[in-house]
Parts: sequence; C-alpha cells; structure tokens
Amino acid sequence: MLRQAWLLFADQGFDATTVDEVAAAAGMSRRTFFRYFSGKDELVLARLVEAGEQIAEALAARPEDETPWQALRRAFDSVLEAQEAQPDRARTVSRMLRDEASARASMEERRRVWLETLVPLVQQRLPRRKDAAIAAEALASAAIACLDTAQAAWTEGGADRMAAALDAAMGAVGPLG
Amino acid sequence: MLRQAWLLFADQGFDATTVDEVAAAAGMSRRTFFRYFSGKDELVLARLVEAGEQIAEALAARPEDETPWQALRRAFDSVLEAQEAQPDRARTVSRMLRDEASARASMEERRRVWLETLVPLVQQRLPRRKDAAIAAEALASAAIACLDTAQAAWTEGGADRMAAALDAAMGAVGPLG
Repeated sequence: MLRQAWLLFADQGFDATTVDEVAAAAGMSRRTFFRYFSGKDELVLARLVEAGEQIAEALAARPEDETPWQALRRAFDSVLEAQEAQPDRARTVSRMLRDEASARASMEERRRVWLETLVPLVQQRLPRRKDAAIAAEALASAAIACLDTAQAAWTEGGADRMAAALDAAMGAVGPLG
Repeated sequence: MLRQAWLLFADQGFDATTVDEVAAAAGMSRRTFFRYFSGKDELVLARLVEAGEQIAEALAARPEDETPWQALRRAFDSVLEAQEAQPDRARTVSRMLRDEASARASMEERRRVWLETLVPLVQQRLPRRKDAAIAAEALASAAIACLDTAQAAWTEGGADRMAAALDAAMGAVGPLG
C-alpha cells in the first residue's frame, strides 16, 4: 500500500495524485482507504515514519564503543543503501518532498516523530549528566539535518554517492573518525 | 506591524487571531494589509526572516579566527538576548510555533530562508574544497537544529538560561572551546 502510493506520487506528483488513484493502485475502495488513513499526507508520513524505525533499529544495534555521532552516521546506512539502489525513484520522491507544499508539511512532522524514537537511544550512549537530554536531542537533530543536507546534494546531482555526501556533511560538524 | 501582530498571536493564539484584528492593531485596513502580505502565515515568516537577517549580520561580523561552529554559536547571541529579555512572550510565541499547524508550516520555510543567507557566510570560513558547499550547509543546518533544541528546552522549563542550553546543545555536537 505504502509502496504503491509512493510509486504513484513519484511518477505523477503528490498534488496531482488523487486518493482514488492511490486506493485503486492498492486494490481497495476509497472507503477502505479512509478507514486506515486520514488522507494522502498521512500516507507520506507513514512511509517516513517507517524509515525512522529502520534507523532506530540500526542505531540500537551499533557497538557501544562508538560515539553517538559515529553510531548515528552508521545507523543511516540502510536508508542510504535503499535510496542508492533505486536512484531515479529516490531522487523523484526527494524532489517531491522538497517542492510540494502539502508533502513538505510532512517533513516537519517527520522530524518530531524521528526525534521521539532516536533521542532516548542517543541518550543511553551519553554519560548521565544534567544536560544529557538536551545533548541527546541536539545530536539526533543535527544528524537529521546532515542527512537532509546530503540527500539534497545527491538529489541535485552535487554528489555522486550519498554515503560520501553524508560523510562530508557529518564530518564537517563533528568528529566521525 | 510585525511586532503588533506578534503580540496578538502570542496573546490569543495564531489560529484564533483574525487578519482584521491584526490590521486594526496596526491601524490599517484589511485591504491595505493584503497589499503587503498574502496572509497571517507570511507575517509569521516575515518575523522569522528578520531574526535570520540579524543572525547573518552577527555571523559576518565574527572574528576570522573562530571556527564556523564557534562563529555560529556567537551569532545566535543577539536572538537569545532578545528572547531572554521578554521571557513570557518569547515562551508563548515559541509554543505557538510548535503547536499550531499553520504556524508550524512556517518553520520549514524559515529553515530554507535562513540557510540561503547563512550557508555562503559559513562557506567563506571553510577551506576551498570540493565538498565545502555540503560542509557549509551541514554546519548551518546543524546549528539551527541545536538552536531549536535549546529553545524547546527553555520553553518547556528544562533550562533556566537559553544561552546555557545552547552551549550544551552545540557543545555536544561539535567543539566550541
């Protein structure tokens, strides 16, 4: 369902795709669609939330001796790989999220949802101090900002490999080595 | 105009404030209001853009021997001081931007506008390298993420001084000293 909708959005644009088309592509009625989702926005968000869960799972599995910044960098790898495996589609989706106002609103919401999952995992890697909660949120939030930067560079063609772009972005901000 | 509108939003909420009220508070007609602004959203954005220009001015004036991260930290000072000078109002506005969907959309737009101004200034402080553009955007974007983190902590009452919260946030991500 998510996958089929995403293909349609990437193909013909988010605003131009109707709920009826999305429902039809997934073999369900409009009524069934609205039983699960409040609208197209929620569908976009659902896909972004999925990616966040994938990152959180990878972060939880990173070795304890990595710094939070190193662990966040590595946790993004699976998302990068999925995008680089289908570059044309990934670039189209990325442009859609950048350019279409209604899809863009989901980006701010995505930030919140990702932070809710990632911040506690980052905080576990920090010494217990009074400002550990602020530090954890800053680290997770800055890492997401770097991911967005790398993705934009890659979408624009300013970077051949997204992984190299993310190394450049995160490496400029904090030590990765 | 911006200031009066902001006071109204902070006082009675963004969604609950009408364009007529904003126009009346500024002593202008509804028609005149729409000659300058497309709506309330643009008014919020205009105020956020102003703050971005203030930060850019401060950044351009920072000594050359500061690292980009240090210079960004110091460039935020004037914005922090303005907010700490009127804490009740600043907290109310900050909650409004967080909670009201229509005001929240302006936050994503603010990020773009701030980056347009800040990224070239950061890039001037970096060695000329192939990935300097990515590095500059990552630094500016991560710094804004830290500012938002510090502001949220201060708004929630988790931090007494916003400057200390910002030191904790930016210091956790990259070296400030």
